[in-house]
Amino acid sequence: MPVHHVVKPSLVVNEDRCRNNISVMASKARRLGLKFRPHFKTHQSWAAGRWFRDEGVDAITVSSVDMARYFAHDGWSDITLAIPVNPLQAKQVAELSRQINLNLVVVDSMALQPAIALTEGNQPGVFIKVDAGYGRAGLPCERTEEIVALAQKLSVVDKLDFKGILAHDGHTYQATTLGQIESIRHESNRRMAVASEALSLAGMKAMVSAGDTPSCTRSEHWEGVDEIRPGNFAFYDVQQLMAGNCTTGQMALAVYCPVISVEPQKGKAVIYGGAVHFSKDFAFENGERIFGAGFAVKEPGASWPCHLEQLPFRLTALSQEHGILTGAPKQMAQLKPGSLVALFPAHSCLAVAQFKSFLTTSGSLEQTINHWC
Amino acid sequence: MPVHHVVKPSLVVNEDRCRNNISVMASKARRLGLKFRPHFKTHQSWAAGRWFRDEGVDAITVSSVDMARYFAHDGWSDITLAIPVNPLQAKQVAELSRQINLNLVVVDSMALQPAIALTEGNQPGVFIKVDAGYGRAGLPCERTEEIVALAQKLSVVDKLDFKGILAHDGHTYQATTLGQIESIRHESNRRMAVASEALSLAGMKAMVSAGDTPSCTRSEHWEGVDEIRPGNFAFYDVQQLMAGNCTTGQMALAVYCPVISVEPQKGKAVIYGGAVHFSKDFAFENGERIFGAGFAVKEPGASWPCHLEQLPFRLTALSQEHGILTGAPKQMAQLKPGSLVALFPAHSCLAVAQFKSFLTTSGSLEQTINHWC
Repeated sequence: MPVHHVVKPSLVVNEDRCRNNISVMASKARRLGLKFRPHFKTHQSWAAGRWFRDEGVDAITVSSVDMARYFAHDGWSDITLAIPVNPLQAKQVAELSRQINLNLVVVDSMALQPAIALTEGNQPGVFIKVDAGYGRAGLPCERTEEIVALAQKLSVVDKLDFKGILAHDGHTYQATTLGQIESIRHESNRRMAVASEALSLAGMKAMVSAGDTPSCTRSEHWEGVDEIRPGNFAFYDVQQLMAGNCTTGQMALAVYCPVISVEPQKGKAVIYGGAVHFSKDFAFENGERIFGAGFAVKEPGASWPCHLEQLPFRLTALSQEHGILTGAPKQMAQLKPGSLVALFPAHSCLAVAQFKSFLTTSGSLEQTINHWC
Repeated sequence: MPVHHVVKPSLVVNEDRCRNNISVMASKARRLGLKFRPHFKTHQSWAAGRWFRDEGVDAITVSSVDMARYFAHDGWSDITLAIPVNPLQAKQVAELSRQINLNLVVVDSMALQPAIALTEGNQPGVFIKVDAGYGRAGLPCERTEEIVALAQKLSVVDKLDFKGILAHDGHTYQATTLGQIESIRHESNRRMAVASEALSLAGMKAMVSAGDTPSCTRSEHWEGVDEIRPGNFAFYDVQQLMAGNCTTGQMALAVYCPVISVEPQKGKAVIYGGAVHFSKDFAFENGERIFGAGFAVKEPGASWPCHLEQLPFRLTALSQEHGILTGAPKQMAQLKPGSLVALFPAHSCLAVAQFKSFLTTSGSLEQTINHWC
């Protein structure tokens, strides 16, 4: 279905931009000697996964057992499930560990037991989740005795393939300057080194896995890090734009929405497109909350704007199925009921999660995990 | 699939409570002489729709063309599509108007033309969307000349079945006292009367359609109103609880989530359950943002708590697939990896929209619209 046949809120991916984003990140990882294990929770689709494969990517990160099964089904055979293992899905985890090279993440070895009991010798790789500054989950890097004891327990008692330590420095998403990002990276590198040195002294080689979109996009400082796992960069979004982590020209995902009512003199329009299409996540622009930013789709297949000034509309309120667009009266005057607007969402990962498929600007229709399970 | 076979985040509906909520609202509408046209965007499922039918409901409200088609397919034949009509879906709207008694909502008659051109004489009913105080969409009630002119145009030029005026007083969702709700109702009743009297003077009988969950639950003041369209009350949620619009014992929808890591001494646990299960909508409790509130599921089929003090856990942070639970260390100590917690979401409508099915406490598995389209 070509983009100009859109009649209701639809996810549209700019394939060229997405491929370019992948290529830039893959090249950076190669240049810095870092293993590139992109997080596939952003695009959640076989199609975009293949664009990564075209760039030589062979190892990925996911955030649910369903997502691991979905990508294993498309031939991905080296997958890190980057969420502490869920004992209630032991059966599914054990099944996966027999099919692919699966890496699990653990904070508490007890949680791993039910899965291990079922793997029949095909023990998965395992990372210890550490906290290097974010403070949300994981063993703080300085609790080296506990980390070493857990690693030994995993290697000896459970005969697991102990891989190393893994952190998610999610606080980079709140950073608004390169200086803030670098200071988070500096602290994370330093703290993960404390944990990996303790493991090394205890005779265990530990891989260090880190890296999110803000820091992987902007930082050059990866001392001691072996592997990066960014995801959002494939599409970027308004949160990343406002934080200075991408340009408008790198934004590769939009939600196309029909305009259903316009009041140009008030600088306001109502669109069919709401929380069930964008999620309710938001970005800040000049202290104001926005759910998206976009432009009028004037002709099918027209190229997307590359500059912020070419985005005259802001999605400033969201109900379940409709949203309020604001902009200058002169810009609003170009819209009428039945016009289409393209809106970059505040948070692309969560917008993708609302749909079962996406269109590409090259005219194909691609399914996502929501179609599959 | 019985509830105790839950291994991943799952939507669970307490059928008894939901049926009771429906019965209470249907009785109130009967007592007040109001037509009850519940909004089905909350539960989005044939199964819950049938519980309404059991209470004598025969007319419903929906917020998308897809939702109208979905419920028409289950035999609902009197449906109001309460969002300004989308000209790009003219074909689907016209098709529906041939199958069922369809009511449309219009702000700008131009938007209606493409659909009208295709209806082949089966003209739908039409409401003018008015703004009675919320300020988000619709013609302000005081612009009576425009409202009358639009109604005349719809009746004469388009030979439509002009039904009346329709408002959504969404600002009741921000109200925290009965006094605030009553003051919104008072203003809405007064302003809608201005518009309906102007229509009456021009010889047009106008039905007045209004009413959302906070006001339909708490207010007795419906002077001049003919029809109410609440939706959320079927399940309620933490937003409604915190606003004083329901008790814990009326909350009929929870997301069951596996616990994946616990730090009792920190009063913290990590659950498998995130923004893709709860949405990112939030409620406020003592000025703090919360995404859900809940309890440990101790035994399959156990009854749900009826008092706020029986909900020891708060969902205080949400990533894409996981969330952070906080609570007193003593309460956290009852959890371990593999425990299940039941969390009432901040906003039940948006939580439902994240799933394709729900379990009921009586043990059945019911599909929602996301399974269907």
